[in-house]
Formats: sequence, C-alpha cells, structure tokens
Amino acid sequence: MISIPEMIGYLAATLTTASFLPQAILTIRTKDTESLSLSMYSLFTLGVLCWLIYGIYIDDKAIIFANAITLVLAATILFCKIYNVLFKKG
Amino acid sequence: MISIPEMIGYLAATLTTASFLPQAILTIRTKDTESLSLSMYSLFTLGVLCWLIYGIYIDDKAIIFANAITLVLAATILFCKIYNVLFKKG
Repeated sequence: MISIPEMIGYLAATLTTASFLPQAILTIRTKDTESLSLSMYSLFTLGVLCWLIYGIYIDDKAIIFANAITLVLAATILFCKIYNVLFKKG
Repeated sequence: MISIPEMIGYLAATLTTASFLPQAILTIRTKDTESLSLSMYSLFTLGVLCWLIYGIYIDDKAIIFANAITLVLAATILFCKIYNVLFKKG
C-alpha cells in the first residue's frame, strides 16, 4: 500500500505541476503578461529544464513526467511574455 | 565529490526556488496582479505546502529548506492577488 508521505509527495507534485495550467490558459486567452515577471519565468523554465535533465539522469519517471508537463506550460508563458516585451508593452 | 546529477539537482532546486523572488518583488512593488492567475497561485501555494510537509515527513533538509522559502514567496504573491480580487479590480 502507498504510505502517507508518498501520498503527500504525489499530491504535492500534482498540485505544483497542475498549477501552471490555469496560468498558461489565462495568459494565452488574455495575451496579458504585464504583471508577470520575465526574470521569474526565465529562471523557472531553466530550473524545470534542469529538473527534467536530473530526472533523466537518475531515471526517475515521476520527476521526468511532472517536469516535462511543467516545462511545456512554463515555456508557453515565457514565450508570451518575451513576445510582449519585444513587440508590445510589458 | 559531488556528482553531475547531484549538481544538476541542486541547480534545478536553486533556480525554481529563486525564480519566485523577482515575481514577489515585482508584485509588491507594482501591486499589479491583473495577469496573475488566482487558481495558479492557490494550487501552487498548496502544493508547496505539501512539499514542505513531505520534506518534514521524510526528514530531507534540502526539500524543507527550498520549499519553506518558496512557500513564503508564493504565499506573498497569493496574498496580493487575493487582496486585489477582493478590494480592487483583478
């Protein structure tokens, strides 16, 4: 049977990964990135990429899976932000 | 000596934790949370809290340390967002 710490770990991973979905949807829908920090999404996307590489290195499927999804979502938000910084205001 | 996967893991943890600092600073400075997703910061803050509890359960100081910092930063951003939703627009 799955232990309590394991259950909390899976819940934690699911929540932190899933949380970027509503932000990505909001950003794509409104195209508004004014109050999003470019530094945050640059560092975060790079960090998630490192987590993914780490997961591949230690061959941990949960880390690979969670961070592959987060990477797509965070990179989408980062792309919208960079686009707005370059071609629009904010 | 520290191994390459370990190094990438520490780099990943540092980047994803540190990334919320510029967002928290931007949010506190501008008070603008219009393009921040309330769902994202609600789910993310709860998720980070779960990571912290998980870290305490398995007694992993790195997980505790990284998520304690992220929790403070994410909760600060969430507080600003909730304040604006309740008392201002967006």
